[in-house]
Amino acid sequence: MSSLLLTSIGSLVTNDPAHGGPLGELRDAALVIEGGRIAWVGGRREAPAADTSMDLGDRAVIPGFVDSHAHLVFAGDRAEEFAARMTGQPYSAGGIRTTVTATRGAADQQLTATVARLVTEMRRQGTTTVEIKSGYGLTVADEARSLAIAAGFTDETTYLGAHVVPAEYQDDPAGYVDLVTGPMLDQAAPHSKWVDVFVERGAFDADQARAILRAGQAKGLQARVHANQLGEGPGVQVACEVGAAAADHCTYLTDADVDALASTGVVAGLLPAIEFSTRSPYPDARRLLEAGVTVALATDCNPGSGYSSSMPFCIALAVREMRMSPAEALWSATAGGAASLRREDIGHLRVGARADLAVLDAPSYVHLAYRPGVPLVTQTLVGGRPG
Amino acid sequence: MSSLLLTSIGSLVTNDPAHGGPLGELRDAALVIEGGRIAWVGGRREAPAADTSMDLGDRAVIPGFVDSHAHLVFAGDRAEEFAARMTGQPYSAGGIRTTVTATRGAADQQLTATVARLVTEMRRQGTTTVEIKSGYGLTVADEARSLAIAAGFTDETTYLGAHVVPAEYQDDPAGYVDLVTGPMLDQAAPHSKWVDVFVERGAFDADQARAILRAGQAKGLQARVHANQLGEGPGVQVACEVGAAAADHCTYLTDADVDALASTGVVAGLLPAIEFSTRSPYPDARRLLEAGVTVALATDCNPGSGYSSSMPFCIALAVREMRMSPAEALWSATAGGAASLRREDIGHLRVGARADLAVLDAPSYVHLAYRPGVPLVTQTLVGGRPG
Ligand SMILES: [Zn+2]
Ligand SMILES: [Zn+2]
Repeated sequence: MSSLLLTSIGSLVTNDPAHGGPLGELRDAALVIEGGRIAWVGGRREAPAADTSMDLGDRAVIPGFVDSHAHLVFAGDRAEEFAARMTGQPYSAGGIRTTVTATRGAADQQLTATVARLVTEMRRQGTTTVEIKSGYGLTVADEARSLAIAAGFTDETTYLGAHVVPAEYQDDPAGYVDLVTGPMLDQAAPHSKWVDVFVERGAFDADQARAILRAGQAKGLQARVHANQLGEGPGVQVACEVGAAAADHCTYLTDADVDALASTGVVAGLLPAIEFSTRSPYPDARRLLEAGVTVALATDCNPGSGYSSSMPFCIALAVREMRMSPAEALWSATAGGAASLRREDIGHLRVGARADLAVLDAPSYVHLAYRPGVPLVTQTLVGGRPG
Repeated sequence: MSSLLLTSIGSLVTNDPAHGGPLGELRDAALVIEGGRIAWVGGRREAPAADTSMDLGDRAVIPGFVDSHAHLVFAGDRAEEFAARMTGQPYSAGGIRTTVTATRGAADQQLTATVARLVTEMRRQGTTTVEIKSGYGLTVADEARSLAIAAGFTDETTYLGAHVVPAEYQDDPAGYVDLVTGPMLDQAAPHSKWVDVFVERGAFDADQARAILRAGQAKGLQARVHANQLGEGPGVQVACEVGAAAADHCTYLTDADVDALASTGVVAGLLPAIEFSTRSPYPDARRLLEAGVTVALATDCNPGSGYSSSMPFCIALAVREMRMSPAEALWSATAGGAASLRREDIGHLRVGARADLAVLDAPSYVHLAYRPGVPLVTQTLVGGRPG
């Protein structure tokens, strides 16, 4: 088993509090990778010998981004709808249903190629783990194939048959919930780690959400929820009640919602690229952090409400718009994402962690927010290998 | 002289109104490059033969970005000052003077390496022309060497001895203006196309600005102005009065300022990455556009108020925060920049233009705003050659 030494690391973010501060940042550091895992971390001068070594020229190294919320299995794009929305022009938008129609009509290879393109794009930007949801198929066959395709790219697959009630069930939402909790779940479950529901006025209500999440849990899936994006509502409470890993969006929260997140440990996923691309108010990250809630940052990459695949962009927005510190934002984009996915092997660079990391063409992680829009990631390693 | 055919261009932005619309966009297009210039533009099926050809697989092609405002000759960075500003922490910031001290202390090679790194970073993001200012030397020798270094990378060099009054002249600003209009100008002029002044409370007032700009013009330099960034003031009026090419920032304008820009044709340079990184209100682009003012978008890349080198990021901000349409934003980032630099050979892809262009990994330029933060530029050609 050959070992690789990364040395002359100007700043190494380990997310290991043993090294001080929330980020466990080490200056003038080195690390050793063996068997796809972190085998050693420390000061450059103390580094052990290894079979091969790479000098990083004082660049910064961070844990790879963990993007805990993305919708990548779809066909077509909605650039015209975006342009109309941004300029206040009328547009007869079909919303999610436009993408559902395109996705149902697409060949498997086309969907696979889109996921591959987006995952590659994410890798180039430092993302080493991405959760991928279904939710643009909304038939038994199309949800199952979406998840089978997603499973080719990640272990973090999420069954989101309850994304929206499709047009053909418009007059029978209860019938659609039966489908989602019955035959669709049966076909989706073998390809899924997670079950998710879009809890929102116009999508699914609290009772429907409970039924869907409980049905998924009964099949061995774990729960996560789209909650409180467009207004106050029951999403966060349902997430806490069923023991979900995460409640994502959290744009409109009551005090009771914040308390529930803090006391249950459900991770709040903030998705500021969506507020950017829909010109909406940003979630109140400081309120959550001050209440002790665990916060994850994710892209929510999707062709409708926000088509960014960039975790660095989310960090820049988190600092500018949500007043997270650069350190808080980086933690949430790495360790926070790992918590949201209930993963202990990623989101940090302690000994034993997967060797998932990004090298920045910058002396420090602060540059991710300080230099918005600039592609600073020069190399991404996944399990110790170029991603 | 060998010719290169670019074909299977899904969307080609020419900025040639002859092809319809402000952007002169052609679908399913092709273009031919010969001798570093655009030799032919049209539909793919009508394309003439060429010595070599490149199939772009339906990607979009746009004119290269013209970044008409950047400060790239400096040493050090101010990441800690940025982090403190964003989190509301106290920080004894030296501001521009911190960078002046570091720049004066840097070796020529170090400054050259920084400019090279940033210009390369810009090229990878589609920028094919960048204006580069001095302004962190503020001695005769340091301004001259800053401009000599900049001239190695661009024809668009700007003498900004009047960036701020340096510490050693704090009690004698009139003496500093004498230096800027005298010996410093003499040494700077051979390396400069432009003369610029930072007109703002705490920097230079209207009389000082007039004296500096007129002195530069007498030496054959053309004028451009930092105007109205932090509050209303005389900057725009001075720019219009002396016949400057551009008044940049334009965050705080009176109706008289807008009228003056419209009637004189002075280009308003908007720099939204600065408002992003200083958490300031954005300029009112719609007011300017509706008054018929020519608008340029630029990065203002600098280590203090905003260290983004990304024109795509500026476009995304222009659409999200300043309500420019994606088409207006792209025009301002290309043709608008060219107008700001009084260049007719760049900023468009008409026959005869320099073959400065960017290929996007996207079907249309709209994706620059629709996919914020994503590095979509896959190839940049400068004078027909990979940049
Ligand atoms: Zn989502
Ligand atoms: Zn400037």
